[in-house]
Amino acid sequence: MDITEYMQDVGTRARAASRAMARADSATRNRALSLIAAAIVRDADLLRAANQRDLDAAAAAGLAPAMLDRLTLSDAAIATMVEGLTQIVSLADPIGEISNMKFRPTGIQVGQMRVPLGVIGIIYEARPNVTVDAAGLCIKSGNATILRGGSEAIHCNRALAKLVAEGLQGAGLPADAVQVIDTTDRAAVGALITMPQYVDVIVPRGGKGLIARLMDEATVPMIKHLDGICHVYIDAKADIRKAIDIGFNAKCHRYGTCNTMETLLVSRAVAATVLPQLAELYLTKQVELRADPESHAILAAAAYPHLVAATEEDWRTEYLAAILSVKVVDGIDEAMDHINQYSSKHTESIITEDYSDALRFLREVDSASVMVNASTRFADGFEYGLGAEIGISNDKLHARGPVGLEGLTSLKYVVFGHGEVRK
Amino acid sequence: MDITEYMQDVGTRARAASRAMARADSATRNRALSLIAAAIVRDADLLRAANQRDLDAAAAAGLAPAMLDRLTLSDAAIATMVEGLTQIVSLADPIGEISNMKFRPTGIQVGQMRVPLGVIGIIYEARPNVTVDAAGLCIKSGNATILRGGSEAIHCNRALAKLVAEGLQGAGLPADAVQVIDTTDRAAVGALITMPQYVDVIVPRGGKGLIARLMDEATVPMIKHLDGICHVYIDAKADIRKAIDIGFNAKCHRYGTCNTMETLLVSRAVAATVLPQLAELYLTKQVELRADPESHAILAAAAYPHLVAATEEDWRTEYLAAILSVKVVDGIDEAMDHINQYSSKHTESIITEDYSDALRFLREVDSASVMVNASTRFADGFEYGLGAEIGISNDKLHARGPVGLEGLTSLKYVVFGHGEVRK
Repeated sequence: MDITEYMQDVGTRARAASRAMARADSATRNRALSLIAAAIVRDADLLRAANQRDLDAAAAAGLAPAMLDRLTLSDAAIATMVEGLTQIVSLADPIGEISNMKFRPTGIQVGQMRVPLGVIGIIYEARPNVTVDAAGLCIKSGNATILRGGSEAIHCNRALAKLVAEGLQGAGLPADAVQVIDTTDRAAVGALITMPQYVDVIVPRGGKGLIARLMDEATVPMIKHLDGICHVYIDAKADIRKAIDIGFNAKCHRYGTCNTMETLLVSRAVAATVLPQLAELYLTKQVELRADPESHAILAAAAYPHLVAATEEDWRTEYLAAILSVKVVDGIDEAMDHINQYSSKHTESIITEDYSDALRFLREVDSASVMVNASTRFADGFEYGLGAEIGISNDKLHARGPVGLEGLTSLKYVVFGHGEVRK
Repeated sequence: MDITEYMQDVGTRARAASRAMARADSATRNRALSLIAAAIVRDADLLRAANQRDLDAAAAAGLAPAMLDRLTLSDAAIATMVEGLTQIVSLADPIGEISNMKFRPTGIQVGQMRVPLGVIGIIYEARPNVTVDAAGLCIKSGNATILRGGSEAIHCNRALAKLVAEGLQGAGLPADAVQVIDTTDRAAVGALITMPQYVDVIVPRGGKGLIARLMDEATVPMIKHLDGICHVYIDAKADIRKAIDIGFNAKCHRYGTCNTMETLLVSRAVAATVLPQLAELYLTKQVELRADPESHAILAAAAYPHLVAATEEDWRTEYLAAILSVKVVDGIDEAMDHINQYSSKHTESIITEDYSDALRFLREVDSASVMVNASTRFADGFEYGLGAEIGISNDKLHARGPVGLEGLTSLKYVVFGHGEVRK
């Protein structure tokens, strides 16, 4: 198979299908989602069998247990996929909404209509559930999609692709609206991210390594984030109880997530009070603290056992582990300087009861999510009430922060005229 | 001067200044704008003298009269610049607006705040008025900006840069918030569009040649459009009076603008009625009609003198001249197929009294502006009520269609918490 030709064909079909999707009404798109869910329930045994082929091949290839785990389509995972589709059906249709129609002095009426982007490319690792989740979100938002999952999941993804196609056709939509790339050749990814004539946006879902590679080559715009180096700053005027609850939760609720705190900044005024109390909690989780000299002295005095001197590199590191860098700062200005220098612009939170400091932090910190007195762990689409999450964007254009269905749409201008011409 | 080093320095200063701009309140930014306007009035003679140096050099270099004309800073042009700044002052401040703050079941309150993008790079040709206009819009929207004007205007741009710096400093803002690149070396442009660490978005203002060149090289995102191949489709159910008014206005109001109609599509049902009447009007402007066989027959029968057979190339051509391609179509489906194949996704209009056709056209045509019964010439920021126009975007991400101050901003999430942690 010539990959370039194959991908051109996939792209052409996707572009054609995107027009049918943009025309389809809410009920039709929801019907497709429900039919897919029903087909998955009906064919659960077939899916598990396909998944077993993937698992056997992966085990033979010596895949790490964590990857095997993500690759496994358990009964619970199937139930979650079906539940996910049902939830997507229940979301409001973002498409076709017309807003801000206003009459202009010329007599025309101008507003904006929310429309699908067109064709979404999704690139992900060996997690078969993403196939259904991503297909569901793209169908709901009236887009066509091209899915490229990890090669380890190819059998399972093929089986899922058949059921998705069945659901689409059952609702009278083109099967090409969701295409699963049916080759494990890596050149397919290279082609997908460099065909802007067929693909409007790429959403990479996966680790930093995957995304960094794509960023180097892509000519199609991406909705993505690379790092989550999130900060909590405990202000001089912090409520100490809130500071301790949030300082512990933001680090220890989960280590591997992008909205986990990686650096804790503490105002000098409260450092000697807050740090020893927080250290007691971190100790229960054996968190390693990498401390600047000032916080190091306080934590050493409190006999914290997992204590290391922070290096410059620590301020730039997303640990994704039970490790936290800690720094004492003068006050809000030094905290914001540090954040603006080292943050990945994902999520930062200030803990304070001071009105003016809260407002300054909200206004001046240039990150996708900026919080007052809340755990950074809240920065996600479900917690924000978006209903679903396609991904998280650290970029400032188009979508910023947690991205829901709206991130897969655009606003075009619509004009209602009555025969007006320009004078 | 080492250009790379120079541009790194410019970028570093701009990034630093952008933080001060983001902090500045409305009154301060407006004060800077008013001070710049006053300085331009005061130093009008100096500006004209600087402009004269540019004009002398340009005349010696044999610049075309049209370019000399655009380069000239007449009294009227100076007055328009000042008036433009005054108008920008009167616009609502887009920055800091918080929208959609909603309580979530967890107790946090989530919404979005509009904030400046950061650093805007503006690349334009030898039109000194753009220097002030672009600086004004970036100051208003709380951004720092790096301006690269055509080298033919360098003396005038230097003089303007001094006045802009004076106004910024007079309001207590950093002069680096608006930097005019002080070299005519073309490598400066290459550097500007490839330093995403310093520049958040590039807005090219100029001809298609300039933009096409930049698109090939830029790694910084751009707000831009390349072509304006705009269509008017006259439906079978069109009000013939409106069809004729709009069909004439969309082509003949101005030829050189991107929202001018380049292709007229006419339903077979009304072609024999509409085309001869329209031809009478086009004849008054000596418009050359490039017609498909069917419209060619009708126009030939009406003895239209400037008639040519259209080629495939005509459907893809933005004439920017008194030339129009014309095609008879079956109905709305063929019209939309043609548009979706050949349009540059800028602006399209349907002329119809049919409710369902109007809705279908609005929904299914994938262009930045889609109109019913209005001239495509309305597609611009002032006509849409944006108050100002940075540019027009044919892209679907971030800004689409005419782009006002909001296009220079982004929405970040803000969370008001009360000590909440994630369960």
